[in-house]
Amino acid sequence: MGFKALFLNCTLKRSPEVSNTRALIDKAVKLFAEMDIESEVIRVTDYNVKFGVSSDEGEGDEWPAILKKIKESDILVIGSPIWFGVRSSVAQLVMERLDGMYEESDHVTGQFPLYGKVGGVLITGNEDGAHDVAANTLFNLTHLGCTIPPNVDSYWVGPAGPGPSYIEAGGERHLYTNKTVRYMVHNLAYFAKLLKDNPIPTNIMELYAEAAEESD
Amino acid sequence: MGFKALFLNCTLKRSPEVSNTRALIDKAVKLFAEMDIESEVIRVTDYNVKFGVSSDEGEGDEWPAILKKIKESDILVIGSPIWFGVRSSVAQLVMERLDGMYEESDHVTGQFPLYGKVGGVLITGNEDGAHDVAANTLFNLTHLGCTIPPNVDSYWVGPAGPGPSYIEAGGERHLYTNKTVRYMVHNLAYFAKLLKDNPIPTNIMELYAEAAEESD
Amino acid sequence: MGFKALFLNCTLKRSPEVSNTRALIDKAVKLFAEMDIESEVIRVTDYNVKFGVSSDEGEGDEWPAILKKIKESDILVIGSPIWFGVRSSVAQLVMERLDGMYEESDHVTGQFPLYGKVGGVLITGNEDGAHDVAANTLFNLTHLGCTIPPNVDSYWVGPAGPGPSYIEAGGERHLYTNKTVRYMVHNLAYFAKLLKDNPIPTNIMELYAEAAEESD
Amino acid sequence: MGFKALFLNCTLKRSPEVSNTRALIDKAVKLFAEMDIESEVIRVTDYNVKFGVSSDEGEGDEWPAILKKIKESDILVIGSPIWFGVRSSVAQLVMERLDGMYEESDHVTGQFPLYGKVGGVLITGNEDGAHDVAANTLFNLTHLGCTIPPNVDSYWVGPAGPGPSYIEAGGERHLYTNKTVRYMVHNLAYFAKLLKDNPIPTNIMELYAEAAEESD
Repeated sequence: MGFKALFLNCTLKRSPEVSNTRALIDKAVKLFAEMDIESEVIRVTDYNVKFGVSSDEGEGDEWPAILKKIKESDILVIGSPIWFGVRSSVAQLVMERLDGMYEESDHVTGQFPLYGKVGGVLITGNEDGAHDVAANTLFNLTHLGCTIPPNVDSYWVGPAGPGPSYIEAGGERHLYTNKTVRYMVHNLAYFAKLLKDNPIPTNIMELYAEAAEESD
Repeated sequence: MGFKALFLNCTLKRSPEVSNTRALIDKAVKLFAEMDIESEVIRVTDYNVKFGVSSDEGEGDEWPAILKKIKESDILVIGSPIWFGVRSSVAQLVMERLDGMYEESDHVTGQFPLYGKVGGVLITGNEDGAHDVAANTLFNLTHLGCTIPPNVDSYWVGPAGPGPSYIEAGGERHLYTNKTVRYMVHNLAYFAKLLKDNPIPTNIMELYAEAAEESD
Repeated sequence: MGFKALFLNCTLKRSPEVSNTRALIDKAVKLFAEMDIESEVIRVTDYNVKFGVSSDEGEGDEWPAILKKIKESDILVIGSPIWFGVRSSVAQLVMERLDGMYEESDHVTGQFPLYGKVGGVLITGNEDGAHDVAANTLFNLTHLGCTIPPNVDSYWVGPAGPGPSYIEAGGERHLYTNKTVRYMVHNLAYFAKLLKDNPIPTNIMELYAEAAEESD
Repeated sequence: MGFKALFLNCTLKRSPEVSNTRALIDKAVKLFAEMDIESEVIRVTDYNVKFGVSSDEGEGDEWPAILKKIKESDILVIGSPIWFGVRSSVAQLVMERLDGMYEESDHVTGQFPLYGKVGGVLITGNEDGAHDVAANTLFNLTHLGCTIPPNVDSYWVGPAGPGPSYIEAGGERHLYTNKTVRYMVHNLAYFAKLLKDNPIPTNIMELYAEAAEESD
C-alpha cells in the first residue's frame, strides 16, 4: 500500500548491545511486513542527538536526520524501556526535540506537523510503569498532531521488583504482549490508510482567530 | 448529522452547586451545537454510582442508566477537576465502572465496547496536573476502544499554588483554553463521522487466536 | 512504645468481600506487632464517605470518624489497589477529604495537620501502575505534612496484562514484596519515634510572612 | 554546621545560557547560606554524562565526578524544567545513572547508597506538570535511600498553555513559590541534622534474609 512505519527505539544502550525493546519492535515489524507495510527502526542512541527543544541544535546535531524520517513516515511508534517507573531519558529527549516542530506548523491550516500521522507505543521493562509511559507518550503525540487509534500500546513487564528482562524471561512467548502488538499493528495500519484517504480538515488558524475574539 | 456527544462531568460537587468544569463543558456544548451535534451533560454525583468494576453493582446502583447513554453516544468527553495533581475520585470511579464493559465485548469481532466512539477530555483546576489527568484519561479510553484524534484535550489552570478557580478567575476569557476547546470539538466531530462511515474492521478474536499460537 | 499505625484500605470492595490489599496490609500489621506497634485497619468503603474537599460534608458523612483516627495515629499507611494504572477512586477520595485539613493548620506554627506523622503506601494490582500510585500518594502526603522515610512502599503486581490477583497468584510468597514490606515497617517505626522525640520546629507562618515581603 | 547541599540543575540548556530553573535554585542557595549551609550547583549539561544505568559508562563519561559530589552531600535537590508535562530528559538521565548505585549498597547493613541523605525538588515550567515531576522524583529518591521531609518541593508555572518562563514572567515575586522554597530549605536543613545525629539503623540484609524464609 506504500505506507511507512517508523520505530524510534529509545533504549539507553548503544549498538551492538542487545536491546529488549528492539526484540518487541521486531514483532511489530514482522506483522507490518505481512500487511505490506515497510518499517524502519532507528536506535536513537546511535545518533548524536543533542539536548534541546529546537529542530536543529547546531553543529554535530544528528536530530535533523531523524526528523526527516519522521516527516516521511505515516506511522510513528515510540519504543521505550522503563526506568524508575517512567519512559527512558532517550524517549523524553525525542519528545523534547519534537517540540521544535511546533514552529513548522502548516502555513495555511496551522495544523501541527504530525497531523495525518498515527502513533503507537511499545514498552519493555522488568517491573512496572508501562501505563505511565504509554499514557504520557501517546498523549504527547496527540499534541503534536498524531491520531491515536484504540489499542495501540503493547508492553511487557515481569512481576513486582527487579528481574530478568523481556528476552531472558521468555517474554516473547507472553500472550498478552503478543495479542496487543497485533491489535496495535492492525489498528495503526487501518488508520494510516483512513487518514491518507480522508485528511483532517481542521483549520487551526481559523479556530485560533475565532477564539481570540472571545479572549483577553 | 445526528451525532451525539456525551459529557460526563466528574466534579465532586452535587447539583445545584456551581461547577467550574461544567462552565468549560458548556463552551464545548455550544460549539457542538453550531455544528448540529447534540450534547448531553451528566453530572455523575447526581446519580448514586457505587464503587466497583462491574456494569451493575446491584440494588440502588444508578450506573446502568449512565452506561446506557455512553453506549448511545458517538463522542464521549470526560470532564474532570484536578485534586492533588490528578483526576477527581469521581472521574476515577467512572473509569473503574467502565472496566465492567470488557465483559460485553462484541461476540463476532471481540472488539471492546467503545470501538467506533471518539474520546476527549476537559479539565479545570486552580494550579497544576492537567497533563496527568488528560494523559491517563485519554489512554484509558483507548484501552476501552475509543479513538483519540489530535488535540482533544482542553484545560484551564491558574499559576502555581492555590488560587481562584476557572469562573472566578475569568478563565472563560483565557485564549489557550478557548482555542484548544475549538480544536477538540472540531476534531471530535470529524472523527465521529469518519468512524461511522468507516467502521474499524479489526477482529480482536482472530488476532487473539493467532497470538495464542506463538505464546505459552 | 505506644505508637499507633493506621491503615486505610482503599479497596473498592465492601466487607465481607475478600480484599487482596488487605492481605498485604496484614503482613505489615503482623510485623508492626512484633515491634509492639499497635495497628488499626479501616476499610474505607465500610463507611459512608461523601465526595468533597472539606473535613465534614454534612448529614450522614462518616469521614469525621476516620479523620479522628488519622489524627490519633503516628504512622499513616494508604493501601490501594490499582485500577486503570492509577490508585483507586477510594484512595483518591481519601486524599480529597484530607484536603479539608489545610483549614485546620496549627495556629502557632502554621504547620499542616499531618506534621509529625510518617507515611507509607501498600499496593496490589494484577498488572501495572504501582510506581504511579506510590509516587502520587507519598507526594500528596508530604504536602499534608507527613515525612516519607526511605523505602516505605511495598507492592505486588503480576506480569503484563490481566491475571490472577495477589492472593490467588500466591503473591504472599513473592520475595520482593516480602522484603520491601519489612523495609517499610522498620523505617516507619524508626521515624515515628524519631519525630516524636524531635518535633519538626519549622514555623510555616513566619516563613510565609518572610516570603510575602519579597512577593507581589 | 558543616552541612552540604548539592543542587543538580537539569535544564536542557548549556552554559552560559540563562536557566530559569537556576534562578529558582539560587533562591534556595541564598536561604541555605543564611543557615550556614554550603551549597553547590551543578548544571548537568556542562558535563558529558552518557546514557546508561551504571556508575561509570567508560571513556569520556563525566558522571563519576558528579556522583562523587552526590556522595559527599547531605542534602540533594533535583532542579528540573518541565517538558511535555514531565521532568526533563536530563533529570531522567540523572535518575537512570543513580540506578548504578544499587550495586554499591553498604556491605554490612545493605542500605542503599543515599540512606542518611535528605532529598528535595525545584521545578520551573511555563504551564503544567509540576506535581508529576515532584511526585516521581521524590519517590525515586526514596528508593535510593533518601528521606523526604514534608513540603520539600517548590515550583513555578504560569497559567494554562505556553507563555513566558519564570524569570521573564516575574515568577521571582510569586508568593506561593517564595513561601514553599522556604518550607523546603528549613525542612531539609532540619532533617539533615536529625539524620546525622540519628543514623537510620535499618539492616536491609537481615530483613532480606527474613523475607526469603517466607518466600518462594
